[in-house]
Amino acid sequence: MRSCPVVDRLACEAMDQEDPLRAFRAEFVLPDKEIYLVGNSLGAPPRTAAERVRQAVEDEWGRHLVGGWNEAGWYAQPLTTGDRLAPLIGAGPGEVVAGNTTSIAVYQAVSAALRLRPGRRVVVVDRRNFPTDNYVIEGLAELRDVSEGRFEDAAAVLLSEVDYRTGARYDVPGMTARVQAAGALMIWDVCHSVGALRVDVSAADLAVGCTYKYLNGGPGAPAFLWVSPRHQTAAENVLSGWYSHAEPFAFEPGYRAADGIRRFTVSTPHVLSFAALEAALDMWDRVDLEQVRAKSMALTSLFIDLVGDRLELASPREAERRGSQVSFYHPDGYPVMRALIDRGVHGDFRAPDILRFGFAPLYTRFTDVWDATQIIAEVLEKELWRDEKYAVRLAVT
Amino acid sequence: MRSCPVVDRLACEAMDQEDPLRAFRAEFVLPDKEIYLVGNSLGAPPRTAAERVRQAVEDEWGRHLVGGWNEAGWYAQPLTTGDRLAPLIGAGPGEVVAGNTTSIAVYQAVSAALRLRPGRRVVVVDRRNFPTDNYVIEGLAELRDVSEGRFEDAAAVLLSEVDYRTGARYDVPGMTARVQAAGALMIWDVCHSVGALRVDVSAADLAVGCTYKYLNGGPGAPAFLWVSPRHQTAAENVLSGWYSHAEPFAFEPGYRAADGIRRFTVSTPHVLSFAALEAALDMWDRVDLEQVRAKSMALTSLFIDLVGDRLELASPREAERRGSQVSFYHPDGYPVMRALIDRGVHGDFRAPDILRFGFAPLYTRFTDVWDATQIIAEVLEKELWRDEKYAVRLAVT
Repeated sequence: MRSCPVVDRLACEAMDQEDPLRAFRAEFVLPDKEIYLVGNSLGAPPRTAAERVRQAVEDEWGRHLVGGWNEAGWYAQPLTTGDRLAPLIGAGPGEVVAGNTTSIAVYQAVSAALRLRPGRRVVVVDRRNFPTDNYVIEGLAELRDVSEGRFEDAAAVLLSEVDYRTGARYDVPGMTARVQAAGALMIWDVCHSVGALRVDVSAADLAVGCTYKYLNGGPGAPAFLWVSPRHQTAAENVLSGWYSHAEPFAFEPGYRAADGIRRFTVSTPHVLSFAALEAALDMWDRVDLEQVRAKSMALTSLFIDLVGDRLELASPREAERRGSQVSFYHPDGYPVMRALIDRGVHGDFRAPDILRFGFAPLYTRFTDVWDATQIIAEVLEKELWRDEKYAVRLAVT
Repeated sequence: MRSCPVVDRLACEAMDQEDPLRAFRAEFVLPDKEIYLVGNSLGAPPRTAAERVRQAVEDEWGRHLVGGWNEAGWYAQPLTTGDRLAPLIGAGPGEVVAGNTTSIAVYQAVSAALRLRPGRRVVVVDRRNFPTDNYVIEGLAELRDVSEGRFEDAAAVLLSEVDYRTGARYDVPGMTARVQAAGALMIWDVCHSVGALRVDVSAADLAVGCTYKYLNGGPGAPAFLWVSPRHQTAAENVLSGWYSHAEPFAFEPGYRAADGIRRFTVSTPHVLSFAALEAALDMWDRVDLEQVRAKSMALTSLFIDLVGDRLELASPREAERRGSQVSFYHPDGYPVMRALIDRGVHGDFRAPDILRFGFAPLYTRFTDVWDATQIIAEVLEKELWRDEKYAVRLAVT
């Protein structure tokens, strides 16, 4: 049974007019005629990013040379940027370090958890989750799937707040309480939720995330690691590079861990990648996360309504239970997505059969939802994806 | 006894005229009146770096958005950049991955070595070496100092080709042979040698290095890891992120290591930091490393001669045994260096008593050596460093 949309393009235009976040779109570099629904994978560039990175190269590196470590604040970037990220995940200052990659932060978090729970060798994960988290910890612990529901002997439970495939969202407070009641540590991966909704990891033990999706920090932007203040003294950083030493410039022969969150830094920050992230965070300083979440739920609900039963929904139908993406199953998902991209609707495909569409509330419009769903309807109804030119696999999708 | 220099400034000008590398200096952003002798810590920006990074932000990220992973070659950066770095360390294509930081590469290299030598838990290091290498592996292995000369039960020996403090250079072929004869793996850290001399790690087992010193890749530029083709099948990557999976886009639940050097990647590259490094590598494609080494030896020898016995030499006097830096001991090294910097001679200070001066053959001139040594002589002879304004410690030096 086809659902019956109650809106038309004019209604979408009205929603855009009333959108309290509408002014942000002009702050991004976006294509004129294409509809970019992949902000859940790589966010669009803030217009200020190019200038901020130019400054870092020409005014900081070019002018200060090695003096930039002090004078341009490079040395402190893992901590200063961490403090700027903290409010986006419900954390406070001195609780977050930025840098490296999510995989590396996962390795640090799980290694720390295993040392905080000596004798426990099991880490509970979601086998359906984006597998990098699981790959990274396979060598560290015995993995058990969350579907077994057994936490009582686990050192830690590592889950993604939002599933990268379906967009399904965990009940963070509920799961955190359940895990901690079993004596295990709760580690949240917020890659797919930070910047899309009001993340709050504060009751958990550790968290990791990236900044290149909804936060728009740029390709390969620094990741981050949150360590609850409860654990900062007892937890150990397995990647104990010189940045994490109590006195990094004493060049002591032996390692002594710093107090506080600096203990979880590793080494030299990727300064130019931090610069682009800083431009993005300048924007986030002005964003109301309640408005982000409200718009995200409205955009994704409208999209689901307008696609109707043309595709099988893989995401939860209830908006509260979703992140800011909508996924559908299609046995020929790959050619379908290529046919859509060919017509300017950019989502992505995840093997074996998932079509994903991400909605970045800072720049996605209700009219984008309208226009995208019109094209989706045409591609599916006319079976345009059956054109053989869409069958050939590209190297990376 | 004061040494007796045989040159004057005119002679230095003539050496600059005859320098086959002299044209490279104009390709760098450098201060007009200051003498930058810290290229061993952070190289100067190639003039093309700003434009290359602008391209990455505006033309690649801005135009391709998520498509940049394919269309702008981001996905392949760890391998394509690795292949470009390979000739600088005597390695071949398919032997080097770029990314992350030196500390992380050290962790990967030592972890791999320990698994290749099961039953051996000792890693031999130089306790005087830049301590990040030692800090990172303290948790992995039992450390023993190289001065004990015992390798027979070691899993690996990790040494810096050039000592960060004194600039002393190891005999790489000799030490490699000695370590391997004892059944241990030889891991070279080439941070302080790559780009300063013709590094050749090819007989060793693993190597790590950074690209922000003599290679001029930018602050926090990607590090690299070399794995001998002999070990690429048996060696394991402890940081087994999704990039290193046999089929990263199959999103399989279990980890299967890729064949070849891709096995040693971790995850998403820091694309904007790679961009600046790419600009630097465009220059290295045109550089003759024999000319670099010849000029480096000439610059450092001239500097030592002109400083004479005003300072106690910490570096080897024989040019072949040095990298491209010259260090001196001074009990009041900190105020001495501050007085020099105040007069435009930029070296750095390493606790407790080392004055370091780095010579980057692509942009340091023989006249810079002359001018710097004139100022050093004045500061020392007039004891200008005793001014109390130089006594106060800055946060990071």
